[in-house]
Amino acid sequence: MISLKGILPAITTPFRSDGTVDLTGLRANFTNWHKTGLTGYLVLGSTGEVVHLDEAEKLELLTVARASIPDTMSMIVGTGLHSTRATILFTRQAAAAGGDYALVVTPHYFKSSMTQTVLRDFYCEVADASPIPVLLYSVPQFTGVTLQPETIAVLAEHRNIVGIKDSAGDVRALIHTLSLVPKDFVVLTGSAPVLYPALAVGAQGAILAIANLAPTACVEIYRLLEANQLADARTYQERLLILSEEIATRYGIGGIKYAMDCVGYIGGDVRSPLTMPNAAARQAIRTSLQECKFFENLKLMDN
Amino acid sequence: MISLKGILPAITTPFRSDGTVDLTGLRANFTNWHKTGLTGYLVLGSTGEVVHLDEAEKLELLTVARASIPDTMSMIVGTGLHSTRATILFTRQAAAAGGDYALVVTPHYFKSSMTQTVLRDFYCEVADASPIPVLLYSVPQFTGVTLQPETIAVLAEHRNIVGIKDSAGDVRALIHTLSLVPKDFVVLTGSAPVLYPALAVGAQGAILAIANLAPTACVEIYRLLEANQLADARTYQERLLILSEEIATRYGIGGIKYAMDCVGYIGGDVRSPLTMPNAAARQAIRTSLQECKFFENLKLMDN
Amino acid sequence: MISLKGILPAITTPFRSDGTVDLTGLRANFTNWHKTGLTGYLVLGSTGEVVHLDEAEKLELLTVARASIPDTMSMIVGTGLHSTRATILFTRQAAAAGGDYALVVTPHYFKSSMTQTVLRDFYCEVADASPIPVLLYSVPQFTGVTLQPETIAVLAEHRNIVGIKDSAGDVRALIHTLSLVPKDFVVLTGSAPVLYPALAVGAQGAILAIANLAPTACVEIYRLLEANQLADARTYQERLLILSEEIATRYGIGGIKYAMDCVGYIGGDVRSPLTMPNAAARQAIRTSLQECKFFENLKLMDN
Amino acid sequence: MISLKGILPAITTPFRSDGTVDLTGLRANFTNWHKTGLTGYLVLGSTGEVVHLDEAEKLELLTVARASIPDTMSMIVGTGLHSTRATILFTRQAAAAGGDYALVVTPHYFKSSMTQTVLRDFYCEVADASPIPVLLYSVPQFTGVTLQPETIAVLAEHRNIVGIKDSAGDVRALIHTLSLVPKDFVVLTGSAPVLYPALAVGAQGAILAIANLAPTACVEIYRLLEANQLADARTYQERLLILSEEIATRYGIGGIKYAMDCVGYIGGDVRSPLTMPNAAARQAIRTSLQECKFFENLKLMDN
Repeated sequence: MISLKGILPAITTPFRSDGTVDLTGLRANFTNWHKTGLTGYLVLGSTGEVVHLDEAEKLELLTVARASIPDTMSMIVGTGLHSTRATILFTRQAAAAGGDYALVVTPHYFKSSMTQTVLRDFYCEVADASPIPVLLYSVPQFTGVTLQPETIAVLAEHRNIVGIKDSAGDVRALIHTLSLVPKDFVVLTGSAPVLYPALAVGAQGAILAIANLAPTACVEIYRLLEANQLADARTYQERLLILSEEIATRYGIGGIKYAMDCVGYIGGDVRSPLTMPNAAARQAIRTSLQECKFFENLKLMDN
Repeated sequence: MISLKGILPAITTPFRSDGTVDLTGLRANFTNWHKTGLTGYLVLGSTGEVVHLDEAEKLELLTVARASIPDTMSMIVGTGLHSTRATILFTRQAAAAGGDYALVVTPHYFKSSMTQTVLRDFYCEVADASPIPVLLYSVPQFTGVTLQPETIAVLAEHRNIVGIKDSAGDVRALIHTLSLVPKDFVVLTGSAPVLYPALAVGAQGAILAIANLAPTACVEIYRLLEANQLADARTYQERLLILSEEIATRYGIGGIKYAMDCVGYIGGDVRSPLTMPNAAARQAIRTSLQECKFFENLKLMDN
Repeated sequence: MISLKGILPAITTPFRSDGTVDLTGLRANFTNWHKTGLTGYLVLGSTGEVVHLDEAEKLELLTVARASIPDTMSMIVGTGLHSTRATILFTRQAAAAGGDYALVVTPHYFKSSMTQTVLRDFYCEVADASPIPVLLYSVPQFTGVTLQPETIAVLAEHRNIVGIKDSAGDVRALIHTLSLVPKDFVVLTGSAPVLYPALAVGAQGAILAIANLAPTACVEIYRLLEANQLADARTYQERLLILSEEIATRYGIGGIKYAMDCVGYIGGDVRSPLTMPNAAARQAIRTSLQECKFFENLKLMDN
Repeated sequence: MISLKGILPAITTPFRSDGTVDLTGLRANFTNWHKTGLTGYLVLGSTGEVVHLDEAEKLELLTVARASIPDTMSMIVGTGLHSTRATILFTRQAAAAGGDYALVVTPHYFKSSMTQTVLRDFYCEVADASPIPVLLYSVPQFTGVTLQPETIAVLAEHRNIVGIKDSAGDVRALIHTLSLVPKDFVVLTGSAPVLYPALAVGAQGAILAIANLAPTACVEIYRLLEANQLADARTYQERLLILSEEIATRYGIGGIKYAMDCVGYIGGDVRSPLTMPNAAARQAIRTSLQECKFFENLKLMDN
């Protein structure tokens, strides 16, 4: 199984101003990302606006991504949909398209029905049917549903469930999970503001939206932790937290995309109802990019 | 414009045990519902498990529903999807299939980006493009997003936005909304436990899951309110609240479907990850159905 | 037992600019309130800033209040403190000072320990020891603790627990409670924005902060309900809701006190850390007082 | 100024079965705690059931504590009350009784009025008047009020505000705070489940309820962090988290006190409405104490 340790971006999907997917831009991004020390990529995740893509667009994106990602790097595909049957169907398509892992978000529309028992059965059924290893995905800020450490521990025993992306940013729950799962179960954080503490308590890596624009900084924190250089990791983490709060938390995917454009990636547009930052927000983002000191020789104009 | 005043069920979608949609069962339900004093129907709403249906199934359901619903009764179609473009596309398909109104849920996956301004712009864009009148739909228990009274009031000025289904069950907010919108803006509650107080403060009707199985009781509360018979309305409401809590709140759509089967409708199965009630839950549901006294001569076996 | 049906204000405690309690002002308020159709008074409630008073001040306030309130009107005293022993001690002092009823807030500092069982035992112990009848008090917006309908129903069986002030403003829960308790158990709402629907579903009255400044409007809603004049009650309620939101919800006790000064009562100061409204807030409050149309010939200056 | 770096327990107040304070037991606890490497003590904190003590009991406790705590160890006193004037008055009494620092909880009864501006003004007023240095105290699980990092940063500039006990357990917010305050501002976590990550991101120490019974384990984590031994710190932290969740989170102060009795301290009773664990809970607590492996040669009977 190809490694998941280290930093992976939850890649954005660039849209042209006419609303179509900019596959050329995406290919250019991969070329640049490949140089930064990333471990692999999450395609069709929340940050990839998967909920804004139709089925044909999703499959085309997978084809392009697989062609762009070398075999030495992992390609995770977000395959969770509302029903078990649709999730299994799309997980199979993702496997056929060359996905290495399926990242399956908790079902969540009928929140009060999504007990831990229901979630456990859902994941077992999907994992039983999936041709590729499954990663759990808990992201309560989007779903209102949380996978509890005890549930994760039970699911970790399934031979085809190999890890979790936990985006809650709750370090207490992360420690609890890590105390319960076997060592080879891959725990990845999805929360940039707690990247360093998550790694410190035993997470093997991270899948991050901010890694679209600041992959090197994220990779550096991972390396500093491996080298036991805590003081430097702290400094980097504080700057990463501010950058993440000021861009991703405050302005969402539109903010991330504008910042990508600023630092040399193809951010492109979002799809409505998401919006791109206005002039004041763009100014604030440029200021944040300069103050974080992650980007050398950054020349920023309002583009 | 066909009337929305009164009680409408948010109809369930019956599935056969092999997972397919039971259109015959649905037709039989319409025949029975027509006799109960309902004003119309919501097709493809949350209770209809719209998130569990694929596109072909949705269109087929609309065809069957339109053929079953007389022109004198309104057919509302749930058409909200995550992106503005997908929502507009499906709203047009719903109109083409004979829908009288489009019920459009708030976009919600990227909750923190769904400011009241973003929601306002989203609804204006959809309403501009929709061939049929639009109803807003605020259901925070599923979406984590709430339409504020002030936002509803602004949207009420749009010529193609004619009402709202407010399922929050927050009577305070309902009064606030009613104090701000014009008299011909249709405010419907989606919360059975507060049906009577919602009508008392000025709501013109309701779209209810519980009306799938207890349409007569809901219609009776509406009539008692119209006749100013508050004491009787209170008694009915207390029984409806208990029934709704014990079946819909406690056991979700699976509970509603099982109860439908008990009282003579075709409930059928849910789609996974939703589950049908187990033996103990079925017993509890049968007890609730008997204790509410809405169903005469009810003979219940465990089916 | 003296009646609790109707409207009671949760009276404010006026402070002079030097921080002392203005007992003269309080007596003047009673004289004016007596003319408005109120049923009685809550002294030392949340709105009375009971948490800002020391023991001597509380006892002096009770003496003045009892002297000012005729025997034909009820005097409820807020007596809940953190520990059971302190609550019992002060309840006895309140009874000795002439209190007709003790209103006992849920203990709440250790929220996660305040299970429904713990709350039930607490209230039984207090009621056993209290020389005067006890009213439960559930106010989750201040305490983070909610008394559930089932718990209220159990406590309603205690011979010395005669009612509840439910300030949650949750009409659904109110109906649930009313469906479970005996008819002579007094259910009072503490939420002005839902006064009319609360009465419509069966509440016997209300204890309200807004009744400090607009007692007549609150009493009028009660009378309209008794007379089955729903349309007028709706109109009054919409205006009361806006007034309550714009003054009490937005500006807290400082807003209520300033508004009292505007309409002829003695509001006086709050105690820090609470603050009085600034100039812009005072202007907004005066505008709200004029727009609600509850106050005839209101001449407002910035005082 | 006497050091705050390291581990301090938020000491419990032992009650005898007749409800009185067991000062002899408290003195015995101090004698045992002194041997464990603790830095100092918090007296009259939340865990000390300060809300259950009357004024005379509080002052007597301070006298006993000061007599028991050597000058080389810090004595922090919880002095926050609802009003500014009462808080200042008691802070002066605590200083007169020999307190080294005043820990001042956020005012919280009128939650919606407790804006960051109001909190800032409150702390400045208290710190201006306090004869001893002030520590902020943010504990949203009890208060429903959170001090934001930006507010903490502004207050850190006050010459008499020297640190914060942040009990939210939110590592993200802790990093944010640490990125904004000067290096000599003392940031202490109040959350045992995140002790290690809190120290790793820069907290200088911790004030913990679990340190009443497991001071050595907490001190060991602090030492391992100082020695850069992350793997061992992780192992200890996982065990501490489980212990803390199973005893403090699950059974509250009653659980902590029973566990103290089990391991050789004087736990004693709680004051009602808090309760002591029942037989099943006591068994679970004894199991947790054995499984955490922090206590050698632990012989546990049901006492």
